[in-house]
Amino acid sequence: MKNNIQLYKHGKVMATGAVVELPEAVAKASKGIDHLSYFKQTISSDEIALTYRFDEKDMVVGFGETVKGLNKRGSELVSFCADEPEHLPNKKSLYGAHNFFIILGKEITGFFIDFPGTIHYDIGFVDKDVLNIKIDGLDVDIYQFTGDSLKSVTHEFLSIIGASYVPPKWGFGYQQCRWSYETADDIRRIGKEMREANIPCDTIYLDIDYMERFKDFTTCDDKFPDFENFVSEMKDQGFRLIPIIDAGVKIEEGYDVYEEGIKENHFCVDEDGNPFVAAVWPGLVHFPDFFKEETRQWFGDKYKVLTDVGIEGFWNDMNEPAIFYTPKRLKAFYDHVEKSKEKPLDIYSFFDLKGEAESLSSSPEDYRSFYHEVEGDLVRHDKVHNLYGYFMTQSAAQGLEAIDADKRFLLFSRASYVGMHRYGGIWMGDNDSWWEHIELSMKLLPAINMCGFMYTGPDTGGFQSDASSELLIRWMQFSIFAPLLRNHAALSSRNQEPFAFEEATTETLKNIIELRYGLIPYLYSSYMKAVGERSVYAANLIMAYDDERTREIEDQLLIGESLMIAPIYKQNRTGRLVYLPEDMLLWNANGAVVDSLKVMPAGDHFVPITLAEVPLFIRPDSGIILGGVAETVEQMDATQLTFLGYMKTGIEESYYDDDGVTKAYEQNQSLETTIRVVQSENGLRALVDFDQDSELMNVKIIVMDETGQRYEGIVTREASSICLEKVSQYDN
Amino acid sequence: MKNNIQLYKHGKVMATGAVVELPEAVAKASKGIDHLSYFKQTISSDEIALTYRFDEKDMVVGFGETVKGLNKRGSELVSFCADEPEHLPNKKSLYGAHNFFIILGKEITGFFIDFPGTIHYDIGFVDKDVLNIKIDGLDVDIYQFTGDSLKSVTHEFLSIIGASYVPPKWGFGYQQCRWSYETADDIRRIGKEMREANIPCDTIYLDIDYMERFKDFTTCDDKFPDFENFVSEMKDQGFRLIPIIDAGVKIEEGYDVYEEGIKENHFCVDEDGNPFVAAVWPGLVHFPDFFKEETRQWFGDKYKVLTDVGIEGFWNDMNEPAIFYTPKRLKAFYDHVEKSKEKPLDIYSFFDLKGEAESLSSSPEDYRSFYHEVEGDLVRHDKVHNLYGYFMTQSAAQGLEAIDADKRFLLFSRASYVGMHRYGGIWMGDNDSWWEHIELSMKLLPAINMCGFMYTGPDTGGFQSDASSELLIRWMQFSIFAPLLRNHAALSSRNQEPFAFEEATTETLKNIIELRYGLIPYLYSSYMKAVGERSVYAANLIMAYDDERTREIEDQLLIGESLMIAPIYKQNRTGRLVYLPEDMLLWNANGAVVDSLKVMPAGDHFVPITLAEVPLFIRPDSGIILGGVAETVEQMDATQLTFLGYMKTGIEESYYDDDGVTKAYEQNQSLETTIRVVQSENGLRALVDFDQDSELMNVKIIVMDETGQRYEGIVTREASSICLEKVSQYDN
Repeated sequence: MKNNIQLYKHGKVMATGAVVELPEAVAKASKGIDHLSYFKQTISSDEIALTYRFDEKDMVVGFGETVKGLNKRGSELVSFCADEPEHLPNKKSLYGAHNFFIILGKEITGFFIDFPGTIHYDIGFVDKDVLNIKIDGLDVDIYQFTGDSLKSVTHEFLSIIGASYVPPKWGFGYQQCRWSYETADDIRRIGKEMREANIPCDTIYLDIDYMERFKDFTTCDDKFPDFENFVSEMKDQGFRLIPIIDAGVKIEEGYDVYEEGIKENHFCVDEDGNPFVAAVWPGLVHFPDFFKEETRQWFGDKYKVLTDVGIEGFWNDMNEPAIFYTPKRLKAFYDHVEKSKEKPLDIYSFFDLKGEAESLSSSPEDYRSFYHEVEGDLVRHDKVHNLYGYFMTQSAAQGLEAIDADKRFLLFSRASYVGMHRYGGIWMGDNDSWWEHIELSMKLLPAINMCGFMYTGPDTGGFQSDASSELLIRWMQFSIFAPLLRNHAALSSRNQEPFAFEEATTETLKNIIELRYGLIPYLYSSYMKAVGERSVYAANLIMAYDDERTREIEDQLLIGESLMIAPIYKQNRTGRLVYLPEDMLLWNANGAVVDSLKVMPAGDHFVPITLAEVPLFIRPDSGIILGGVAETVEQMDATQLTFLGYMKTGIEESYYDDDGVTKAYEQNQSLETTIRVVQSENGLRALVDFDQDSELMNVKIIVMDETGQRYEGIVTREASSICLEKVSQYDN
Repeated sequence: MKNNIQLYKHGKVMATGAVVELPEAVAKASKGIDHLSYFKQTISSDEIALTYRFDEKDMVVGFGETVKGLNKRGSELVSFCADEPEHLPNKKSLYGAHNFFIILGKEITGFFIDFPGTIHYDIGFVDKDVLNIKIDGLDVDIYQFTGDSLKSVTHEFLSIIGASYVPPKWGFGYQQCRWSYETADDIRRIGKEMREANIPCDTIYLDIDYMERFKDFTTCDDKFPDFENFVSEMKDQGFRLIPIIDAGVKIEEGYDVYEEGIKENHFCVDEDGNPFVAAVWPGLVHFPDFFKEETRQWFGDKYKVLTDVGIEGFWNDMNEPAIFYTPKRLKAFYDHVEKSKEKPLDIYSFFDLKGEAESLSSSPEDYRSFYHEVEGDLVRHDKVHNLYGYFMTQSAAQGLEAIDADKRFLLFSRASYVGMHRYGGIWMGDNDSWWEHIELSMKLLPAINMCGFMYTGPDTGGFQSDASSELLIRWMQFSIFAPLLRNHAALSSRNQEPFAFEEATTETLKNIIELRYGLIPYLYSSYMKAVGERSVYAANLIMAYDDERTREIEDQLLIGESLMIAPIYKQNRTGRLVYLPEDMLLWNANGAVVDSLKVMPAGDHFVPITLAEVPLFIRPDSGIILGGVAETVEQMDATQLTFLGYMKTGIEESYYDDDGVTKAYEQNQSLETTIRVVQSENGLRALVDFDQDSELMNVKIIVMDETGQRYEGIVTREASSICLEKVSQYDN
């Protein structure tokens, strides 16, 4: 059997930790990159250039978190974790460094470039037929994957980087966030409003305001008095609180984290060996040197301060690491201003001055000014920049594991590198309340999934700028299909909680979020299967279909194996065009109650979709499993479920579940329910294999056949095989 | 007969000059705005608020130059001419103030708010069902238009604001621009490359570099020696040079424009009565007070400096007016920096500092710090801000008229106000090389046309950021349908002339630009008809069709009466979906030669479109007139044309032409050719009425009927009625 993975190395052996399950045969057979015949190579004293000439129809997919579409051909990207709040079309870097991509041409070949410094990709931008990759260093591992489909090549890659992080099941609930819930009372009010509006919600977030002067692992007693009781008060109402943890540690005498860090040499150092100083939210800080095992352990243990008071989830932020300024660059700026004052400013000097202020933050010069200790050696930060967020989140994950090895904590990060997907998810960063960013989040979800990060989602409604009610509704109609469903907004932006608009909007959002909860059995099952099978949770159509049309469709996605979605992402629309690669069953859902079903033939359709409706397309001979609605995930009724299927010749679907909170799933302690619908002499028959250990007592089966005939029946443990009854159609 | 126009006034009579052809009856019957029953009104001591409650399906269209789509419902806009280089989705203002909009519901009602200060429009943003208009002042004229269609209401509006500017016909040629053609030799090289590549081109632009230290009406002898000979040398090669003129006049002893301005009191003054000082490209400048008739005359006469050396066109820039900084604000910034230095910077102080630098430019405070003389009174700039660019361009137009009253000069502006459309066009400002900005320019063209500005177009290929060859090709495939077809790029961006990419790209762009020249007879005819009939040149489908689907289609446009376009505006596409409200004839053009014809039924179609193809859809029983290709518009062969029509029951098209350079058209001195195709016993018969004064000798007729049968024939002055011959189809 041909080996589908090849490893090519250059320089000394690296240990980024991205790849952890490489078949030994591949490791042994690894070659120098001069054997990597796919690319023309040029190796100089400090960089490696790889070149490939495209065929006319070659597509390039992958690269995870970028602002680009499905096919990256014609784009420029830079692999460099960046605190980039402006997700504009010309931005070459976002927060993650995801060096996995696939070239789809006559052959399908994937590459993972395991390199923690900067990589420049010119993917047919300068010359549309030429791929140019410039690796800013010499120590690199390149993995080549071959297969007969996008799916199989992606699978090869996912198979060697380790299984994706699994959140607690409540992490699939609706999550509410905003930067500016400044006090415990603010949080209480949010919770109260959510409950009064009867909108399901599992978590409320604590952005930077909960801390005492933005110091990690502190809580502000003035604004959040008696924090432990507050956590438990909110938990009693079904809300878990999720605090933010930033990368920088405030320099402040008497602050234990700072003092320990200094004493035990946990901080990154400057060229003189002194702790490196930068400014972020707390003012002046040091950055923990997460590259050191002992520092990871030290910092990871700190999370206990918060888990001890009942916290069960965290988001790690500012870990590119973002730098607002450094004292050194601020001084240079002041000097520049001083010089400017000496003489009248010509216009270019004026722009220089303005540019100087703009470039104070996250300056490349600063990234070249501090060092990590890697196996006893000092390594300049920029050489390994892309691993910083990775190691911070590894630190957190290992800390939490030490606290409770069997408990699933919610954990996600802003910065990331391939491999970090084992420790936590990522959110899509600081987007804007723009219609374009709904579309962007639809592009990001499958691309990020392909790089192993299954737990992800956008700041629904948009972080910066002001949201309109319609924008929030349409965005929510997409986001309910993302594993991480969070509404988040920035300080000074318009309030965008589901209850912050007209009553009709609140009602619409309630229905959409209820649909999400109804879908959780299917979504969670799909998620867990993807993690287990090393496939993806959300995919572009091209992953499953190979017709020409699907190569260019970016605004419809497959969620799991049975569902296709086609959200509206433009203002003032009453419908949209949808391409069906095969005939499907449309459920134009208005809330979680199954209604409004219609069989649609393959081809292009203009589908009318009101503001209240979420169109779900069920693939032939498959179906989705639905639960009942509840205030929180944990309150959902596990005894009864609904199965909605589209029957052509026969359906067999298995539905995964587990306890949702422990890591027992790692030992295959899961619940499996299999649902079958078959043709029989007397019409359609439904059969359910109940898992012995499951609480599930009955499954309501709703099936529509090709002719649009709807069938229903309830399968119970007692009567686990029944004939379905024809019911009258009220929608076609 | 019901009068379709109503005028409501408040405050003293204004004279913005926007409306010039109001029927006397309307003027006499004008009422106070308290009679304007459409809106609920609140009038305070310094502002007027108008409120309207929408019906569910109401659409709002209009507002000219904005970043928004066809239907503005759900958006916020601010009418305030802004130097806004970032055309992001949340930007509320661009360069123009175009206060004309139409509410389409059960009734169709248009409004023009004639007010030169700031107006805030909340068009169902805060509450989706409420329109809130806040007018920052009390002196306002509001015109209400009623009609039975979008088209008729638009016509009413266009009828009272005066006829649109008409450029010379060569202004429909391809125009090449870039900020950084620094020397005459740079320009020579551009011309040479264009001619060597055989790409038609009529003009090359001179951005700010041609001037001596950015001083208006100077040329730099070092970089452009012997300017007059250079102008004539380029003209001999078919290139007209189009210099930029900026609003600010450099403060420099010995500079005649400055010295005259001071001596004759032509400059805006500060609160102390001294000339107001701001900094733009030349460094410190004064702004001419274009609100004064004598200043307009003085500045307008200066254009003669350039027309005397052979210049025939200008673009007026920076006339919002843009302000980079003022000495006063720069001092405040320096003081702020000085204070910041005194103590360690907390993080909010740091952002204040950074924000202070960012907000140095075009600060509202500065706009409140200078004054215009209006009828002897001093008026603070911000109160009348939106008229500044208007008056500058009026000044230029009147100056040019004084130079040669019968000559059409090319003239367009960045800032504008309704009414300025009589004096010149506008370009769409400083966009980016983003795919999204192709789409934006497709939204802008019909919206800007609706407000009277017929001569307009985008910076094709994008001003800022770097263009890829594919982006430029796709953008060009749209822009060839805009009256102003200009490729323009910013300093430091990638070169994007048609010859700057791979050879295949140059070839493709050559074909597209040749198609443009082929289309000029039709485009120019359509333009002149729109100007004459007070209709629009480019329109959204909703202007002509009233089915539900066309209400939401923004990416297909009607150009003139016979043509629909559906450009590709996304990367890596091999086709796109097109909605046909009725059956049409598709010409998938590859260059200017008619080929590849196909009849398409009404409905949705996925149309394959290669990178080389431009799809043109011809409406039933109509057609377009095509010319031959030449290096310049003036070299086009006027003796023979081609007519391409789609025949169902019968075609009658008249084609407008004129000398293209004089204003004889104002006296109806035009050429009209009428082409008819009729069913006769022997098949299709074509008849052409030649204009006696025209040079046209023959018209090749190509017609396809509903069945896809193609007919051809050549009509001459001798045989002006012929039977068309069936020709074999090579494309269906």
